[in-house]
Amino acid sequence: MTRLPAGFRAAAVSAGINVKGRPDMALLVSDVPATAAGVFTTNRAAAAPVHLCRQHLAEGQPRAIIINSGNANACTGVQGVQDAQRMAQLVAESLKLDPADVLVCSTGGIGKHLPMTCVEQGLGACVQQLQYGALDEAAQAIMTTDTVPKSGERKIQIEGREVTLSAVAKGSGMIEPNMATMLAFVLTDAAVDAEALQRVLRQAADQSFNRISVDGDESTNDSLIMLANGQAGNKPLHPAHPDWHVFEEALYDICRYLALAMIRDGEGATKAVTIDICEAETDADAEMAARAVARSLLVKTGWAGTYSCWGRVIAAVGYSGAEMILEKASIYYDDCPAMVAGQAGTATDEQLAQVLSQPTFHVRVQLGLGDGSARIYTCNCTADYVRINSEYYT
Amino acid sequence: MTRLPAGFRAAAVSAGINVKGRPDMALLVSDVPATAAGVFTTNRAAAAPVHLCRQHLAEGQPRAIIINSGNANACTGVQGVQDAQRMAQLVAESLKLDPADVLVCSTGGIGKHLPMTCVEQGLGACVQQLQYGALDEAAQAIMTTDTVPKSGERKIQIEGREVTLSAVAKGSGMIEPNMATMLAFVLTDAAVDAEALQRVLRQAADQSFNRISVDGDESTNDSLIMLANGQAGNKPLHPAHPDWHVFEEALYDICRYLALAMIRDGEGATKAVTIDICEAETDADAEMAARAVARSLLVKTGWAGTYSCWGRVIAAVGYSGAEMILEKASIYYDDCPAMVAGQAGTATDEQLAQVLSQPTFHVRVQLGLGDGSARIYTCNCTADYVRINSEYYT
Repeated sequence: MTRLPAGFRAAAVSAGINVKGRPDMALLVSDVPATAAGVFTTNRAAAAPVHLCRQHLAEGQPRAIIINSGNANACTGVQGVQDAQRMAQLVAESLKLDPADVLVCSTGGIGKHLPMTCVEQGLGACVQQLQYGALDEAAQAIMTTDTVPKSGERKIQIEGREVTLSAVAKGSGMIEPNMATMLAFVLTDAAVDAEALQRVLRQAADQSFNRISVDGDESTNDSLIMLANGQAGNKPLHPAHPDWHVFEEALYDICRYLALAMIRDGEGATKAVTIDICEAETDADAEMAARAVARSLLVKTGWAGTYSCWGRVIAAVGYSGAEMILEKASIYYDDCPAMVAGQAGTATDEQLAQVLSQPTFHVRVQLGLGDGSARIYTCNCTADYVRINSEYYT
Repeated sequence: MTRLPAGFRAAAVSAGINVKGRPDMALLVSDVPATAAGVFTTNRAAAAPVHLCRQHLAEGQPRAIIINSGNANACTGVQGVQDAQRMAQLVAESLKLDPADVLVCSTGGIGKHLPMTCVEQGLGACVQQLQYGALDEAAQAIMTTDTVPKSGERKIQIEGREVTLSAVAKGSGMIEPNMATMLAFVLTDAAVDAEALQRVLRQAADQSFNRISVDGDESTNDSLIMLANGQAGNKPLHPAHPDWHVFEEALYDICRYLALAMIRDGEGATKAVTIDICEAETDADAEMAARAVARSLLVKTGWAGTYSCWGRVIAAVGYSGAEMILEKASIYYDDCPAMVAGQAGTATDEQLAQVLSQPTFHVRVQLGLGDGSARIYTCNCTADYVRINSEYYT
């Protein structure tokens, strides 16, 4: 069970937006004003609720988040904007807040208007059912093609007091560097300086959700939102605070944990793969190369089987734009030398197949050129990915 | 049947490189010296034969091309270079040419040394079996995962004389803008100025093979090679020749024809799709957007079914880097308005499903910003793509 930090309540209901009747709305609320921060999709087709969140973070003091799955409220025009505003307004009225204190997140299919009758009823039910304690039902309610709910909790000591960070996330397909078809919410009872919170949340995203790739598609609704309500009673955290690094590390850790949970739950995926590029000319080169490998459809479908396809890996590095001299490059699968100095290494096909048979493995490409490095997390692409995405409606 | 131009002979044999025993070596030869041109992969992991071809085009006067499928001779180190040189040398000895007059192309799995005993025997058999007439067997011999041989022929009038352009190509997976896991050979009996030939071949590639995308992966062996032997008796063609445009158009046409044949034969593909981006701010923006849509795994797998997934199309344009204002953008499938001014258009799901049920359809994204445009050809991605690439050994 994932528990809420002090002073936070949550609710989750089945509002009937998702046709399968499963939970599809959740509400997260701090009892007291909180500092809030958000990181959002850079997609130019960003959905109405993303625009609303950006505006409310700039103008209000958000401490409530209403979330629905089953419909992304994306590409829905003026009506979509009004629907998102209405959701914020109704939550605000029920909780006696200003509408700008409410954030709205939607995830699901693109291009259909929200069924507002369902949404309004579900929203009312959420307000009624708000309670302290567990975050698990909210984790269920925000799922789309996810097969498992994703949540986590970290307890740390700040000024000798116990501080809790609790988080929920969803994400499985349309997952790529600049966020993903993902929503993630981090709640903490720590007091945190507002500017410091925004900065550290951005850094946490860069080290976690921006390092994973399921299919290379950046969505219209990606949002990572954090609320810090200060109920732990500490002095506001900022980089000069003696316990700042404890807080920072806990935030990075929980974000990485949720990002890796998305990879493990990648649509149709059966293998989670860590790709390390090292000895690149620069870090930027290493990142280009790592992202090219993680995006390569040939590599990812190859890994649906047990053949290592190291040739496809080096081909992806070769077209990535990163500096490479083939004769200096080597590839290791876990510790097996698949390619050494530009040609087949001593690892046998059987040894490599054994690595590939694991649910998680590690691919390291050494370029032998400098000390640039980068890591990206990805997964394989199976026929199930195709099945899911030729049937799922977005 | 595709016939060879005057003064060209061809041969194809089963050398045993491809384990399934099908034809896997071909030889194309001009009886007389020819002008030659080539366009090659930009992959930094380019295979040994690619390096050899670049060198021989610079130093020799190539008029013979020896080709094998079943093994790419890529990532094969010094041995691979020597093997490619040996192939050129043996052909040269048999045909009384200089080794620099012979080009070598390989396609197939990466990272294993060529079985040179098979290759040498096959090469000898090719020399024995050279004959005038058909190019069809060569088209068979260069196939890897291709399901159909690809060849074509164009007859034009130059100075009132009949001139023939005949071409063969292979390519099915690892197909992406900067060439592809593709080989293509164009033979003509026209006389063509060497510099003009290189320039027009590059332009032809840019308008054909560089406009298709099956899976976004650029391979290590992509080669497009052209030989012009002058046996038609015309004065050497160059841009100032009155019939230059007839020749140029025929070359573009045959290259586009073969490029589209690759898309139709894309691994596992069941639908060929033309993507047009228009009214973009610039042509460069339009091209970025078109390539993002053509590469989007979510779009391509979506099209494995009959749902239009226009939301995924606009999401891909939205993250492509192209300028976009959602409210000004519209998407048409054939002539059905899927999205108009940033939200669902009047086309019904049934109408769109009908478009999607065709083996070929057209997607037009109008950005409403300027007069930039670009076209890319692509195909859908089915579970068969995954099956093929998790079993095929590269």
